[in-house]
Amino acid sequence: MSARFAFELLATDGAARLGRIDTPRGTIRTPAFMPVGTAATVKAMRPESVAETGADVLLGNTYHLMLRPGAERVARLGGLHRFMNWERPILTDSGGFQVMSLAELRQLTERGVTFRSHLDGARHELTPERSMEIQRLLGSDIAMAFDECPALPADRRRIEESMRLSMRWAARSREAFGDRPGHALFGIQQGGLERDLREESAEALRSVGFDGYAVGGLAVGEGQAAMFGVLDYAPAMLPADRPRYLMGVGKPDDIVGAVKRGIDMMDCVLPTRSGRTGQAFTRRGPVNLKNARHRDDPRPLDEACGCPACRSYSRAYLHHLFRAGEILSAMLLTWHNLHYFQEIMAGMREAIAAARFAEWEAAFHRQRAEGDIDPI
Amino acid sequence: MSARFAFELLATDGAARLGRIDTPRGTIRTPAFMPVGTAATVKAMRPESVAETGADVLLGNTYHLMLRPGAERVARLGGLHRFMNWERPILTDSGGFQVMSLAELRQLTERGVTFRSHLDGARHELTPERSMEIQRLLGSDIAMAFDECPALPADRRRIEESMRLSMRWAARSREAFGDRPGHALFGIQQGGLERDLREESAEALRSVGFDGYAVGGLAVGEGQAAMFGVLDYAPAMLPADRPRYLMGVGKPDDIVGAVKRGIDMMDCVLPTRSGRTGQAFTRRGPVNLKNARHRDDPRPLDEACGCPACRSYSRAYLHHLFRAGEILSAMLLTWHNLHYFQEIMAGMREAIAAARFAEWEAAFHRQRAEGDIDPI
Repeated sequence: MSARFAFELLATDGAARLGRIDTPRGTIRTPAFMPVGTAATVKAMRPESVAETGADVLLGNTYHLMLRPGAERVARLGGLHRFMNWERPILTDSGGFQVMSLAELRQLTERGVTFRSHLDGARHELTPERSMEIQRLLGSDIAMAFDECPALPADRRRIEESMRLSMRWAARSREAFGDRPGHALFGIQQGGLERDLREESAEALRSVGFDGYAVGGLAVGEGQAAMFGVLDYAPAMLPADRPRYLMGVGKPDDIVGAVKRGIDMMDCVLPTRSGRTGQAFTRRGPVNLKNARHRDDPRPLDEACGCPACRSYSRAYLHHLFRAGEILSAMLLTWHNLHYFQEIMAGMREAIAAARFAEWEAAFHRQRAEGDIDPI
Repeated sequence: MSARFAFELLATDGAARLGRIDTPRGTIRTPAFMPVGTAATVKAMRPESVAETGADVLLGNTYHLMLRPGAERVARLGGLHRFMNWERPILTDSGGFQVMSLAELRQLTERGVTFRSHLDGARHELTPERSMEIQRLLGSDIAMAFDECPALPADRRRIEESMRLSMRWAARSREAFGDRPGHALFGIQQGGLERDLREESAEALRSVGFDGYAVGGLAVGEGQAAMFGVLDYAPAMLPADRPRYLMGVGKPDDIVGAVKRGIDMMDCVLPTRSGRTGQAFTRRGPVNLKNARHRDDPRPLDEACGCPACRSYSRAYLHHLFRAGEILSAMLLTWHNLHYFQEIMAGMREAIAAARFAEWEAAFHRQRAEGDIDPI
């Protein structure tokens, strides 16, 4: 615990970093994976269970929460932590990304974005100032600057204009956020796959000054190779003494590749969303429990996994639950996936501390290459 | 624990009975409420959580399990207890009731019922002999005789013929079940609302001899007053030294009225099904969390309840979860409802032990009559 927000870099191994973020609500061990709690719940999980998987911090979505139940309502009810019964740190996004992907009738101006809710068509506005206000009302520990992010591929001119707008919004976000001890504001680097634009963006953010820095505008359709290409240089453009957050990433191998390249924090809906569609992630790669090959299989999903799904149930049972449309299917597979993602993070943290990241990474890829166990 | 199935009557208070059923898989405290685990899962609950609510025994559905995943498959996988990770006792129904309510193209003969699966249209047959085989394959601790049960109202002739067929099937069920130490077979009294037919049915069952006796053919459309009318005399027709099970009941006040009239065991989907539709049961009556009155309410569903939904969340949050279609809504409300049903059972057991059932019952009705807390 700490009265203020502080990042400490504990060790490095190549570009990979081991660290800790102290906040008044607890410590975040980095590299950290943040489960996504879109609508004030990590879907199909009780928060106690999310904590059991090893998560130190959750992500909450400004766009979803502003529409339902509403930021002012959450504030009246004591803030997001209390509302959803999660006392550890929460990072909130700015709403910018989801306005662009979910809302209807968007109008983008220098001031911000007006749009219609995808839930009921009601008219809303998000600006850097309103985004900061919403994130303050929610009570998030780490707020994100309000930005705009084009899907890739996009032409250079579009990426450049968007990045410069986002940098002006970043400065307005910083101004609107003000001085809130114990709370952090992260700036978001943009610039697509253009190295000079990434540098221009990083320079703009550094000149404003943030408590942490995100690499934004990736995992938006460019593919892993292109993403890693940017991560080969982009993190080093950001201050080394602040946490670096890669937004919306990713699959297990994306995560490992990102940490290898100097990323400290990530979030993704993949483990939770996949948990609701019968898809499990394991040391030996993905396993689709819908598949009839599991119907008579008495073995656990992963014999080496300590999560409740693997400790207490057979593949045959998990297959049955999914086929029968049972809620317990989503509950168990989500738990397993979050557990596995946290296990990857813990493994990487240990490996960096021991200066054995390369060996850990090689073993990670070797196990995955083996593929799932043979059918019985 | 006990190597054999045994019922002990510990105390009575009026017609209400306190008892215990010992089985090799553990003790069932009676009066007992059995949560329903239709498809090898109590919907939206992990079995550890079901046990935490105080349930000693679950009900499994022969009809659902024979169709998916199949009784032979469950047996190959080590039986239903292991399959679903519930080591305590399981009672299975015979499949008769659900064939009549769910299956398609039913054909009823002296031999049994042929029907098409509501899942895939496949042709199946259930007979007393096959029902006993399925329940044995599932590994249930308490099996139910295969019977037929007409919906009410029905004319006397239909009820009489059906009851007599069920009694012939009961004798065949007993024969097919054989001698299985540690496992029990219950007979099911039929006869609708006709006292003389209930007596004839009870006599037929007693002459065969069962380990327990169910009052069947109620909670099928006759209303509470008519049901209580039958329960005023039917339980006393059954051997006092065996457990008495009222099938498919019911609402909290049905349960209390049934125990008052000498019933020891009950099951119902109400607490679990209602948990998925935003309906909670509390000491002060039902609460519909869909209702907008809860939107800004920071108070728990029931301040005196110790379940996770009431300990850690506001009505506003539970309302939000339901409106947002979140799985956690079903998880928390199901837990609450099962917790409350078990609390009623524990309260009645204590009251009977203390010979204060009438006072307990009066307090139960008094609290319900107060209704839900006023909106804020």
